[in-house]
This record gives sequence, structure tokens and C-alpha cells, in this order.
Amino acid sequence: MKILADFKKQFDREINIYLDEKIKLTENIDKKGSDLIKIIKEFINNGGKRLRPAIFYYSFLDYSSQNSAKVLKLSFIFELFHSFALIHDDIIDNSDLRRGKPTVHKKYDLSTAILAGDLALMLADEIFSQEINEKKIIDLYNEFKQELLVGEYLDTIKIDDVNKIMELKTARYSFVKPAIIALSLAKVEKDEIKKWEEILRKTGILFQMKDDFDGTFGDEKKIGKSTDTDIKDGKNTLIIKRFLEKSNNKEKTRFNSFFGKSNSKLEDVIWLKKNLKIYRIDVEFKEKILNESKNIEKKLSQDFPDNKLTKLIKEILVYFQSTV
Amino acid sequence: MKILADFKKQFDREINIYLDEKIKLTENIDKKGSDLIKIIKEFINNGGKRLRPAIFYYSFLDYSSQNSAKVLKLSFIFELFHSFALIHDDIIDNSDLRRGKPTVHKKYDLSTAILAGDLALMLADEIFSQEINEKKIIDLYNEFKQELLVGEYLDTIKIDDVNKIMELKTARYSFVKPAIIALSLAKVEKDEIKKWEEILRKTGILFQMKDDFDGTFGDEKKIGKSTDTDIKDGKNTLIIKRFLEKSNNKEKTRFNSFFGKSNSKLEDVIWLKKNLKIYRIDVEFKEKILNESKNIEKKLSQDFPDNKLTKLIKEILVYFQSTV
Repeated sequence: MKILADFKKQFDREINIYLDEKIKLTENIDKKGSDLIKIIKEFINNGGKRLRPAIFYYSFLDYSSQNSAKVLKLSFIFELFHSFALIHDDIIDNSDLRRGKPTVHKKYDLSTAILAGDLALMLADEIFSQEINEKKIIDLYNEFKQELLVGEYLDTIKIDDVNKIMELKTARYSFVKPAIIALSLAKVEKDEIKKWEEILRKTGILFQMKDDFDGTFGDEKKIGKSTDTDIKDGKNTLIIKRFLEKSNNKEKTRFNSFFGKSNSKLEDVIWLKKNLKIYRIDVEFKEKILNESKNIEKKLSQDFPDNKLTKLIKEILVYFQSTV
Repeated sequence: MKILADFKKQFDREINIYLDEKIKLTENIDKKGSDLIKIIKEFINNGGKRLRPAIFYYSFLDYSSQNSAKVLKLSFIFELFHSFALIHDDIIDNSDLRRGKPTVHKKYDLSTAILAGDLALMLADEIFSQEINEKKIIDLYNEFKQELLVGEYLDTIKIDDVNKIMELKTARYSFVKPAIIALSLAKVEKDEIKKWEEILRKTGILFQMKDDFDGTFGDEKKIGKSTDTDIKDGKNTLIIKRFLEKSNNKEKTRFNSFFGKSNSKLEDVIWLKKNLKIYRIDVEFKEKILNESKNIEKKLSQDFPDNKLTKLIKEILVYFQSTV
């Protein structure tokens, strides 16, 4: 992914400079005072695609002549906030791996992970509060933060409505809101923002579908996290929903005996994956992902300007098509 | 405590109205979406003295003719932030009780407590971001948040410097910063702010000393939390520091065998408390608290205006004297 990879390169260079400055400043309080920022820095440098900051950055620059260094600094907000969300999410899901490395609470401990997450959130808010004072954008940002948190909570208590969680945790959080905030800052007119909102929402839902697909059928080494976590957590994905529609009572009974149980055995996980394939749910989702990504791509070519944001989204769609 | 009690009454009425409105708004996302705000509401209504919002409120109104309803709304920031800090702190310390009730992670679970704390922080920031846009105040607020967090972390990793933790976690967080932010908003001149900063710092350190005293020698029912938590946590207080100065090697060995161990036995806790009394450390701290509170009281009468903030601090000092 060329655009995203290029963005990541400059983003990582600049966010590391920013984090190193913060480390120095915090060491004025106490020499151990910077430990948490070092952990956040390590977490960010462990990987990640910088999707949210990239969407923000290109949405903003495609529609304004704002200084790109300033926009890049603003884009840190989304990566720092995302680090907060992931570090706490990994505790909640009790995940062992993230980006192919031990999660913060596994490598350090629960207390450190809670505080590192808290601090990442505070850093995101610090940049936001220093740079932005438009009421409309402030409201959008508060909404962005709280929607993610409510989505996270609804996911934790396992409400049945899979679509609502996808909407909150991925579509709005990872695609729609970073773009809307940028486009609003760039004073793009309402109808144009609405158009982007719709297509990014679709892309976000597709992204979640791909993520669930990888989380079930993917290669652990490639995706950098365990493929049994979703099953042990009892994560209510569209794939699981489809399995429950197709399976018979005996299968459902076995499924319920281990799904969402932290002690579910390897043989259970293997059994489930085998049955998903017997019912051709892998093929069904693969086709869904292929078709939907081609639909979105077509719409982008027809109705949207040929700018960087369009190119970035197309790049992501092509990536989905080539890796599903 | 008359001033604080009166403040609490109006504060609680208004913050409950605010929280009920937030509950309604969040239910628009999902009917379970408001669970976390309900938990924050329950946590706030379980008790607490509203010390930080009261200091903010009176500091502001003593020096400005700002609308008091608006200042009260701003004071929510400090209680919401404090709720965030306590909910996460209770997880970190693995405390069972807070304000005489089960802590959030004990009553609900770890995930819910992490998310409820996160949301309380977001609510504090939401009010701040909607109401305040002066650069200087924004910097003070970001400093306030991050200092508390670093203090929290240094406490967790048990650095030896007890004074630094007291400074960050109590003096600056609970007394100095709420006042400084208010006085800066009210455009009080620098020298006057400096004067308040000094006396509030002293009051804060005294407050921490009293808190440690209660946490060691207090009555569990009266203070609403267990008096063995600090010992099981290995909390580095001035009382413990004094014990290590006075005790012999044999006592130090026994002390080290259980201090900071979650499985330390009741007999160990009783043994430590008995030895603290044998060395008259209880009497020593009682006298220190009495003397220092009288010193501060005298200084307030001599050098400070006879306003509400002065009266509030005096009230707290008299409370220390009568309950130590």
C-alpha cells in the first residue's frame, strides 16, 4: 500500500520526535516519570498501519491549503487515542498479542497498562486542546471519543446487535469521524461531507468484516494476533451470526459449550473452523468482501474527486481484494 | 463542616441533573449505552466531600463576579476527573471498599471499571473543552491531569521519595491546581496566586498526612475503606518511613516479610499497628498534624483575606484537629 506506507514513514518519524520531547519534559518531574510515555512509544513503534491519522491527514489536505506539518501534528491525536483504546481493549479482552508483540498488560502489568492507556488519551486530548477551539469540531471530537467508548462497552456486554457495534467501533470511529473532523476543519460544504460520510461508513463496515475474517481464518503470524481470541472472548461477529443461522441443534450445543469461555480447548477452535468451512461460510464472506469492495471502488471512481483520500481508500480496497 | 457541606448539597443536586441529561443523550445510541454513566453517577453519589470542586468554586467566586451557576458547572470537571482517578486507582490497588461501598471493579467487573473510569475522564474533558479556550488555562489543566497520572505511576512502582508522591498526588492535585486554575480564570494577579499556591501546598501535604494517619490508625467504618489496604499494597507513607527509622533489624525483617504482600495476615497487620504505637509514632503524627494545622490556620488569619476560600481551608484544618 503505497500511499499509506509513505504516510506511515513520515508520520512515524514525526511522532517519535514529539514523543521524545514529551519524554524529556516528563523527566523533569522524575526520572522514572517518563516510563509510561516510553511504553506508549514502544507500543506505537510495534506496528500499526496509521490508517486513522492517514484518513484525517489526506481528508484535510485534499480540501485546504493548511500547512501540512500542522495537519500531521493534528493527526497524532488519532493515533494516540487509538493507542489508548487498544491498550485498554487488550486488557478487557485479555489478549496476549498485539501487532505480533506481547500486549502492554502482559509485557508489563495491569496497573502499568491502565495508566499507559490513560496517559495516551491525555496526550491526544492535550494536542487537541492546544490546537483546536472551534465549537463544532470540539463537539465532533467529544462525540468521537464517547461513541468509541460506548461501542467498546456494548461489545463487552455482548449485545446481540452486531451491526451497531460495527457501526460504533469501526465504521464511525476508524473511518467516518477522522474524515468528518478533517473535512469540517477544512470548511468543506455539508453535502460533500455527507457524501464522504456514506462511502466511508461502507468502507468501515467492510473493514470490520475483513478484520473478523482474518481473525477467524487468517494466519496468526501475518495478522499479528491469535486467531482464537475472538472465539474465547465470544465475540459476536457476522461470521458467528451466520454459523448460528446455518448450524443444527447438536452443533449449536457444542458451540455454546466453549464459545466465550476462556478455557475453550484447541480442539474446539479447530472444530468450529472446520464447520465454518463445511458450511462454506469462509467462501461466502470472501465473496461478500470481494463484491462489496468492488462496488465501493466503482462508486469512488464515478462520484468522487480523484484526490489523495480517494486514492487511499481505493488502495485499502485493493488490499482487501488481494489478501482475502 | 458547614461550608463544605452546604457546597456539597448544591453541587450534588446540580451534578445529578447534568448526569441524568447525559444518561438520556447516551440512550439515543443504545438503551444499554448509558450503563457506564449510571455507574459513574452511583459512584459519585456513594459519598465524597467534593473538596476539589469546592476549592475551585470558592477560589473563583471570591475573586470574580462570574455567574455562580457557570462556575458550579465548571467545578464538575474536578469531581468527574477525580472519579476517573479513583475508579482506576482502586483497580490498581485492588481495593475492596471505597466510600464504604464495594469498589466499581468489585461490584461490577474489571472491564466495566476500566471503561467507567475512561468515560469519567472523557466527561471531565468534554465540559472543559466546551467551556474554556484560554491557552494558559488549557496548559494548566493538561499539566494537572498528567501530573496526577505520573504521581499515580510513581506510587505504583513504589519510588522511595514519599514526598514527591505526596506533592503530585495530593498537594498539587487536590489543593493547588484546582485553586490555581480558578484564580487564573478569575485573572487574579501573579503574586496573590503565588501566596495561595504556597499555603495550599502545605495544606495538601497535611491532608495527605492525615489521610495516611486515618489509613493506619483510623476506624474502618468511619473512613469507609479498609485499614489494611495501605499495608498490603506496601504504600510508602511517612508513617512507614518513620517506622523504618526507629525499628531494629529483627522488626525490619518481620516487616519486610509481609509489607506489600497481598496475602499478608491479619496478625501481621495487628503486629505492625502495635509496634507503631510502642514507638509512639501515632502520638508523634497526631502532634505533627495538630501543630501544622494550627500554623496554617494562623497564617491564614494573618496574611489572607477573610473570604470563603480562607474559611473553607480553616474549616478543613479544624476538622483535622478534631478528628486526629
